[in-house]
Amino acid sequence: MVSKGPRVHETLASVGEQEVIRAITAIAGSSLNGDDAAVLHPGAPNHLTVVATDMMVEGNHFRQEWSTPEEVGEKIILRNFADVESMGARPVASLLAIAAPPDTPLEFVRGLARGIAKRQDKYNAELVGGDVTHSSQIVITLTALGALGGDLPALTLSAARPGQTVIAHGRIGWAGAGLALLQRYGRAVPSEFAPLVKAQCAPWIDPGRGVVARAAGAKAMTDNSDGLIQDLTTVATKSGVGIDLDSAALEPDDLLVAAARALDADPWEWVLAGGEDHTLIGTTPGDVPTGFVPIGRTTAARDTGVVVDGRKPQFSAGWSAL
Amino acid sequence: MVSKGPRVHETLASVGEQEVIRAITAIAGSSLNGDDAAVLHPGAPNHLTVVATDMMVEGNHFRQEWSTPEEVGEKIILRNFADVESMGARPVASLLAIAAPPDTPLEFVRGLARGIAKRQDKYNAELVGGDVTHSSQIVITLTALGALGGDLPALTLSAARPGQTVIAHGRIGWAGAGLALLQRYGRAVPSEFAPLVKAQCAPWIDPGRGVVARAAGAKAMTDNSDGLIQDLTTVATKSGVGIDLDSAALEPDDLLVAAARALDADPWEWVLAGGEDHTLIGTTPGDVPTGFVPIGRTTAARDTGVVVDGRKPQFSAGWSAL
Repeated sequence: MVSKGPRVHETLASVGEQEVIRAITAIAGSSLNGDDAAVLHPGAPNHLTVVATDMMVEGNHFRQEWSTPEEVGEKIILRNFADVESMGARPVASLLAIAAPPDTPLEFVRGLARGIAKRQDKYNAELVGGDVTHSSQIVITLTALGALGGDLPALTLSAARPGQTVIAHGRIGWAGAGLALLQRYGRAVPSEFAPLVKAQCAPWIDPGRGVVARAAGAKAMTDNSDGLIQDLTTVATKSGVGIDLDSAALEPDDLLVAAARALDADPWEWVLAGGEDHTLIGTTPGDVPTGFVPIGRTTAARDTGVVVDGRKPQFSAGWSAL
Repeated sequence: MVSKGPRVHETLASVGEQEVIRAITAIAGSSLNGDDAAVLHPGAPNHLTVVATDMMVEGNHFRQEWSTPEEVGEKIILRNFADVESMGARPVASLLAIAAPPDTPLEFVRGLARGIAKRQDKYNAELVGGDVTHSSQIVITLTALGALGGDLPALTLSAARPGQTVIAHGRIGWAGAGLALLQRYGRAVPSEFAPLVKAQCAPWIDPGRGVVARAAGAKAMTDNSDGLIQDLTTVATKSGVGIDLDSAALEPDDLLVAAARALDADPWEWVLAGGEDHTLIGTTPGDVPTGFVPIGRTTAARDTGVVVDGRKPQFSAGWSAL
């Protein structure tokens, strides 16, 4: 009898390096892949290349009992592409390096590739290269390349100036709430909270908002990866400004409030310190770009850092990698 | 009493993420680093960007009892830069992602950064970004970016044609001999064999030979990472040619012969199947480029793969990552 389903007993070691690479490129292919290195042709003349890299370690950044391999693939694309978008650039390509135990099912890698392909298709980006090797724990490194066309400067951490509007694109606090729910309930999170779990396992920002923000005159930008206050403090410090956030613009929505009630938690902790939403957060001296909302103002009070309604925020800790 | 030496008790966890990043950038710095992503300005108008990524896992690709952290840094640069050079491109930048146990000494990371800086300085390349996180085992991912200027095509695995000269730049077999010596003697390898151990722990090729080969009319190129026969078989298969190597050009040198005698081994195994030398190997229809030597010819005998003096090679297995 021949099974038509995936051969679930195939492992990385049983099929070997070349077959693992074939499995990935069959799902996330590119004509640029398959040589010692990939050669990227510019989408526009004289654009600049933007590049970022980011690791996800099993048990640290994801757990297979909480996330599907597809979600891990989606998340590692978003984590990196948000960094590229934070410069105002358009993501165009990625490289995937995987270290995994030899008994890892090939289906895990296929799922990862499906998530990567699904998410980067939204950007018309391609997986152009990578590496596969063995280790005791799954470690995935994704490198993202982007294109920065035109004459406007890149959006940087140091480009905020007093008197600008602080802007945000994407949910704030959902990924933190999702993590808290998973920690409490495991896979049995009540279905009403599924969107929060999804925001943790496969966060979403609309493709292209960084490019739009740059075109619309934004100056500083980063993404909310470590926590809103922590990431904006980096902008404030590097730019030499203060930031005063407007609590009314950050007010936890009904879903966050309900989750907080279920967990006996304070939803403001997720909003101010949760991180992992990869919300694009920045500043602009002009109109708020399409897709963004205003969440505060930059000030000349550089010594006070980031405040909320003029006061020290209730929560300010954030994620640390070590 | 204040110690002036390195504070050897500092670990990644004790100093924290920001201090680890500062330690790296203090040694391998770039004005392009320090934002969400790095923005690379072209060294020449309308060049193409070449990119490759490669992982090194402790216990698999290196052992701290055999290699210093500096050597690990040198090797991961060479592994990636050889891939970029194999396209005929000039390495210009790197990104470093490190996952390591929290109790890893900060001095390990400093050493790694010193090796990276030392080696990429030879190329005028810079470390422009990275990531640091924790894991149970040290996993290092380096991504290399290169610039491919001018109108000549990149050097590819599929560009060999019958009747070309097979060329090589760099030692062949030394890294394999070094590994065998370390496996036998550990740190107590007889000093006469030190160059072979160095070739394993911090292999060397002269910077810029890939660029020279492309300018001189070479067509196909790769680097000897998995084994000479295995890597040339990839070129032969992708190009649809046969390759006939000249044993006289590959003859093990006196040091390899002496090491083989000490280990009761056959030096031809290191030459033909050792890999990890990262020797640039390729083909050209014209003159042998400066720095390269001829080691054989391409033929129309595509079904016979890679032969030595017209016969099936004595050793052909190679390194597999899984």
